Amino acid sequence: MSRYRAHLFLCTNERPADHPRGSCRARGAEPLLEIIKEEARKAGVPEPFRANRSGCLDACESGPVLAVYPDGVFYTVRNREEVARIVSEHLVGGKVVSDLAIPDPPRRGA
Amino acid sequence: MSRYRAHLFLCTNERPADHPRGSCRARGAEPLLEIIKEEARKAGVPEPFRANRSGCLDACESGPVLAVYPDGVFYTVRNREEVARIVSEHLVGGKVVSDLAIPDPPRRGA
Repeated sequence: MSRYRAHLFLCTNERPADHPRGSCRARGAEPLLEIIKEEARKAGVPEPFRANRSGCLDACESGPVLAVYPDGVFYTVRNREEVARIVSEHLVGGKVVSDLAIPDPPRRGA
Repeated sequence: MSRYRAHLFLCTNERPADHPRGSCRARGAEPLLEIIKEEARKAGVPEPFRANRSGCLDACESGPVLAVYPDGVFYTVRNREEVARIVSEHLVGGKVVSDLAIPDPPRRGA
């Protein structure tokens, strides 16, 4: 069994302002970590739960990027309203928020 | 299905040198990220694979801490030899490396 029922990783990677891929920090990721923790407390997300910063999750164009493990779902999350939806619909309700989920990239050779 | 077959998060959190819990960076985490990538390439870890830095994974006393998702296994990883074992036995061989795994903390109310 996984150590955490839900373990979230928010990319807070920073690139130079003129980098063609942009970066999650430039897209406003940093303040979202506290918002995630606040919304999780408010919604009563089942313990054990944890939210961490991470390095680049390689979906920069869709950032700020939030990975939800052990489910392995990647989200675009831009503001408190989107955080609240992921928290209530996915972490409490158990249902992936399809319109915020980032599609898996095509597999090599697939 | 998870975006990555194996997605590794290495805690590189830093605390002041006199902090009672220590920190993964003080325990030598930082150089391990490149070692993980090198050993994964050498061993032919199945793609898609990714290794990232993360913030504090809250198992500081056992650090440097490496989380392996989606499996949800947490490891103590201190040097290239231990990285190579986790890579070959777990990521390639599919078997948890029990003597390096960090036991799950007791659940509240359990």
